[in-house]
Amino acid sequence: MLDAMKVKRAMEYRELIDVLMSDKHFADVVLYQGNVINVLTREIYQADLAIKGNYILMVGDAEKLIGPDTIVVDVKGKYLSPGFIDSHMHFESSMLTITEFSRLSIPSGTTTLVADPHEIGNALGPIGMKAMAEEASVVPNHVHLVVPALTPDCPGLETAGYDVTSKDMAEILNYPNVIGIGELQGFSNAKHVYRNTPEVITDLLASTIYARSIGKIVDGNAPELFGNELAAHIISTAGECSCHETTTKEECVEKLRQGVYVFMREGSTQRNMAECIRAVTEEGLDSRRCILATDDMVAEDLEKLGHMNEIVKRTIDEGVNPVEAIQMVTINPATYFGLKDRGILAPGNLADIAVISDLNEMKVEAVFLEGKLVASQGQLLIDLPKYTYPDNVKNSVKCKPITEEDLKISVNGSEATVRCIGLIPDQNLSESLELRVKAQQGVAQPDVKQDALQIVCVERYGRNGSIGKAFVQGFGLQQGAFAESVAHDTHNIMAVGTNLKDMVAAINHVIEIGGGIAVAKSGRIIEDLRLPVGGLITDELTGPEVSRKIVALENTVKDQLGCKVHAPFMHLSFLALSTSPKWKITDQGLIDVNNFEILPPVVE
Amino acid sequence: MLDAMKVKRAMEYRELIDVLMSDKHFADVVLYQGNVINVLTREIYQADLAIKGNYILMVGDAEKLIGPDTIVVDVKGKYLSPGFIDSHMHFESSMLTITEFSRLSIPSGTTTLVADPHEIGNALGPIGMKAMAEEASVVPNHVHLVVPALTPDCPGLETAGYDVTSKDMAEILNYPNVIGIGELQGFSNAKHVYRNTPEVITDLLASTIYARSIGKIVDGNAPELFGNELAAHIISTAGECSCHETTTKEECVEKLRQGVYVFMREGSTQRNMAECIRAVTEEGLDSRRCILATDDMVAEDLEKLGHMNEIVKRTIDEGVNPVEAIQMVTINPATYFGLKDRGILAPGNLADIAVISDLNEMKVEAVFLEGKLVASQGQLLIDLPKYTYPDNVKNSVKCKPITEEDLKISVNGSEATVRCIGLIPDQNLSESLELRVKAQQGVAQPDVKQDALQIVCVERYGRNGSIGKAFVQGFGLQQGAFAESVAHDTHNIMAVGTNLKDMVAAINHVIEIGGGIAVAKSGRIIEDLRLPVGGLITDELTGPEVSRKIVALENTVKDQLGCKVHAPFMHLSFLALSTSPKWKITDQGLIDVNNFEILPPVVE
Repeated sequence: MLDAMKVKRAMEYRELIDVLMSDKHFADVVLYQGNVINVLTREIYQADLAIKGNYILMVGDAEKLIGPDTIVVDVKGKYLSPGFIDSHMHFESSMLTITEFSRLSIPSGTTTLVADPHEIGNALGPIGMKAMAEEASVVPNHVHLVVPALTPDCPGLETAGYDVTSKDMAEILNYPNVIGIGELQGFSNAKHVYRNTPEVITDLLASTIYARSIGKIVDGNAPELFGNELAAHIISTAGECSCHETTTKEECVEKLRQGVYVFMREGSTQRNMAECIRAVTEEGLDSRRCILATDDMVAEDLEKLGHMNEIVKRTIDEGVNPVEAIQMVTINPATYFGLKDRGILAPGNLADIAVISDLNEMKVEAVFLEGKLVASQGQLLIDLPKYTYPDNVKNSVKCKPITEEDLKISVNGSEATVRCIGLIPDQNLSESLELRVKAQQGVAQPDVKQDALQIVCVERYGRNGSIGKAFVQGFGLQQGAFAESVAHDTHNIMAVGTNLKDMVAAINHVIEIGGGIAVAKSGRIIEDLRLPVGGLITDELTGPEVSRKIVALENTVKDQLGCKVHAPFMHLSFLALSTSPKWKITDQGLIDVNNFEILPPVVE
Repeated sequence: MLDAMKVKRAMEYRELIDVLMSDKHFADVVLYQGNVINVLTREIYQADLAIKGNYILMVGDAEKLIGPDTIVVDVKGKYLSPGFIDSHMHFESSMLTITEFSRLSIPSGTTTLVADPHEIGNALGPIGMKAMAEEASVVPNHVHLVVPALTPDCPGLETAGYDVTSKDMAEILNYPNVIGIGELQGFSNAKHVYRNTPEVITDLLASTIYARSIGKIVDGNAPELFGNELAAHIISTAGECSCHETTTKEECVEKLRQGVYVFMREGSTQRNMAECIRAVTEEGLDSRRCILATDDMVAEDLEKLGHMNEIVKRTIDEGVNPVEAIQMVTINPATYFGLKDRGILAPGNLADIAVISDLNEMKVEAVFLEGKLVASQGQLLIDLPKYTYPDNVKNSVKCKPITEEDLKISVNGSEATVRCIGLIPDQNLSESLELRVKAQQGVAQPDVKQDALQIVCVERYGRNGSIGKAFVQGFGLQQGAFAESVAHDTHNIMAVGTNLKDMVAAINHVIEIGGGIAVAKSGRIIEDLRLPVGGLITDELTGPEVSRKIVALENTVKDQLGCKVHAPFMHLSFLALSTSPKWKITDQGLIDVNNFEILPPVVE
């Protein structure tokens, strides 16, 4: 009936009870007279918090629990919060290993991360997810994974490194630190999925119902869905689901009304919280299913701004009661995920605690993880050895170098109307534009004057050698090109540029270094970053080093190429995301997301 | 990967999706333009609710889902609520089978019952619980069981019909309609359990940790616990727990702060809601862990007052927002129990719906259960055949008839100071009194003038023949006696009377009829009720018949014996409850609950 883990838990609990009930045993640590942020009752009041081993013993008057060896920490005037949960994030977006992400996020008070290894799953399949699950199991903070629901997102419209099967999913769902299925996007384009690939729905239901049957969650993802389509999406998740791509107040209200946990996203580029939170601040809706999540955070933001504490601060700034905002990163996600050992400061819960010195600024002064002080004044106090990934997740770039010929967009005549993706800063959504460009020798030419640059997506796994081509407006490059092996969600090689020569140079450099980022000007590489793990992550640099490197790359693109959008690499990578309307580009071509179709780059 | 049940679910969901996404399929039923009570957002707004098969298809504008065969029900001006959940109740308290209880409770809007078969478990052990689980599986409403945590509650202080082992519990926990462990009372007297039977805690932890590991809940029960003892109790439940014996606002505030789901009890005799709800109405606490439950309801109240609708009405009367009150019988308990297919009106949830004509009066006009109209205007519309229990749960009274000699309380001299339980109407708690009574021939005599009656508890399972004896004040009998085989929680035979002759007559009649209730006056039986199932329940009478019979019995006790307390049988039965302070009586004697001790009836 009881295995070793349960016996251990029983012995730990028995020890807690001994401390509470006898006069002979005492707490290990008492945080004395802090302002307890009670996310259960939505109150703040003064109380002590006693810790024994990994657990919270009690919150209240802990005088009797203080023994000769108890460490008493005076926290008068400071606030005690449950450690924060990021409910939906991708490590790959930071280009950091879990270890390096944790190094930056723990000191901000984040103690639990729920990550979707969607990117490495697309690039490497189960091998990549297993490698990430392995790293997740050795870091001191709590890292849970959700299995990507569909890789690739849109079969037939893009090529991933590996097509994850429902058999793979069932296997991965049973890993111990996998808590569910990640962003189920099958209904993002509900009508089209239903009309074009109805068998996908049957497959999805098999997976989601199986996941529910073993007690796992299923994250949904339902941008711009309402009414019958939203209902169909919810049903396809076989139960409670979440959405982290809600962008308007109206959408947020509707999803909360339909039982969807709305993960109000506030990442490095996609910032939807201020709009979504109006469902609470203006409409006064019950916020128990409102959750804050980052989705995608870059190393620099983590280092300079903070993590969930910063997102909570912004939410408070929008007029939300501070305790209610903190509920959105503690009890609300813990309830959603069924993580019953955290998210509240109550007896028997893990002693994951953020000590906050300024509530409105959400300044985190110290962090406890399972009862141990792990960070203070923004500094990690524990040893966190650099993690090196095994060789089987490296060398994911298997395609051959390309030539200018491969990238040419052929047209008839001296001018042509081309299809041009319109970049929308800080959004996954894009516009669909048609522009007139000149042609030379039957090839459409980028035009920096009207900011009509060429964009391409090169299949990099050696599966079919496809290259998608189109135009893009919004980067504002005046010269050169840049390329990267990060391209949501299949992570082929994306490149944008003012000329094909620099684009080829950048792409071939990315291929040569086994994945990463390259910036080219006048035919040569002027800056690069190796991302050896799946072409997405570096296990060669620390978090701060990556942060500095990305800044250097961004400055190069801005100063030397004239780029006018911030975070250009993240913006470029999302222009491949074939599930967010309107137009995107994959290795298969320009994708009309709303109509689930591939469009030619030139209007006939 | 998928068994037959999952395939069925997948096919049902697929059908819902077909209706939502195609133009060729339609809803079965549309409740047209009702006022939807949205317990997710705490709003009421006008919308349609579409049903297909057992499920809610969508809530919103359902025009497109109306086909030629769709039944459209105009519910303009009426309110649509998720069906109500009673989160903690004992069928045995009603003396009704599950079927008869359901016959009375479904028309009031209750669609889910979580029952603790604690009484039949004490009387018959696993055989009784299995028989009840069997009946639970055939009724049309949703009946879930929780396994009693400890039978008997206080080993050594009382004798049950069967001592349930942790092996029994593990087996019963795996029945399909068993969702957890029921009211874990081990820490009700925390210090004493800890000091006197510390091994009980180790056993409890083994059971609670096992239950958690298979995804089951553990109900706690922590009357009058605070501080370290409350914390120890919570930890002994190995996670989130509930308490349905919270009686003061202060206790309610403290338990909510510590993460306990407070089941604010409002039953036929124990009424704690009005006091507990002040934590919400006066202190403004987040009510997400507030739940309403009945614990013990008699048939007459069910028939005349209603069920959860009546409790919600009373809660509204205390000043709670109606939607917030309804959350306490829908989404809040569904969240606690992990019942993810109900408690909200959202796509894919079971179409369990209460149609309410008057919100403040909580008048339920119609009830849908899994999409079918099952009740209208208080009348059940479906056939509900009377359920007969198997023979193995009958004939539970195995003791031999007793004599007056067995009940005598011996004293020295002509007077004595005796220990007297003070009945507190509508509470499980009691007072401890000492009174002077006269003695005749060395036997302490009941004294109707000071309302000092004799009370006894006779072991009825043929295990040891023990009889506990003491005095009681509060019933006010002027003559005669009554006895019953209902005596929480071990259900030996309780009797109260003005003289031993009538007490013996009543007790022996209860033995003779194989369990039930008997009223005696002047040495003969003047009214009785057979309770053949475990000595607790009748499967011979319908709900309304039991209701009338109990009224007749109560009137007899009131009119002919002079009883001054209402619901005398329920009050008597709770005077055996050895876990609620201060004094109770079991077959082992007078129990000092706070000190976990047996006291002699006479003060030496």
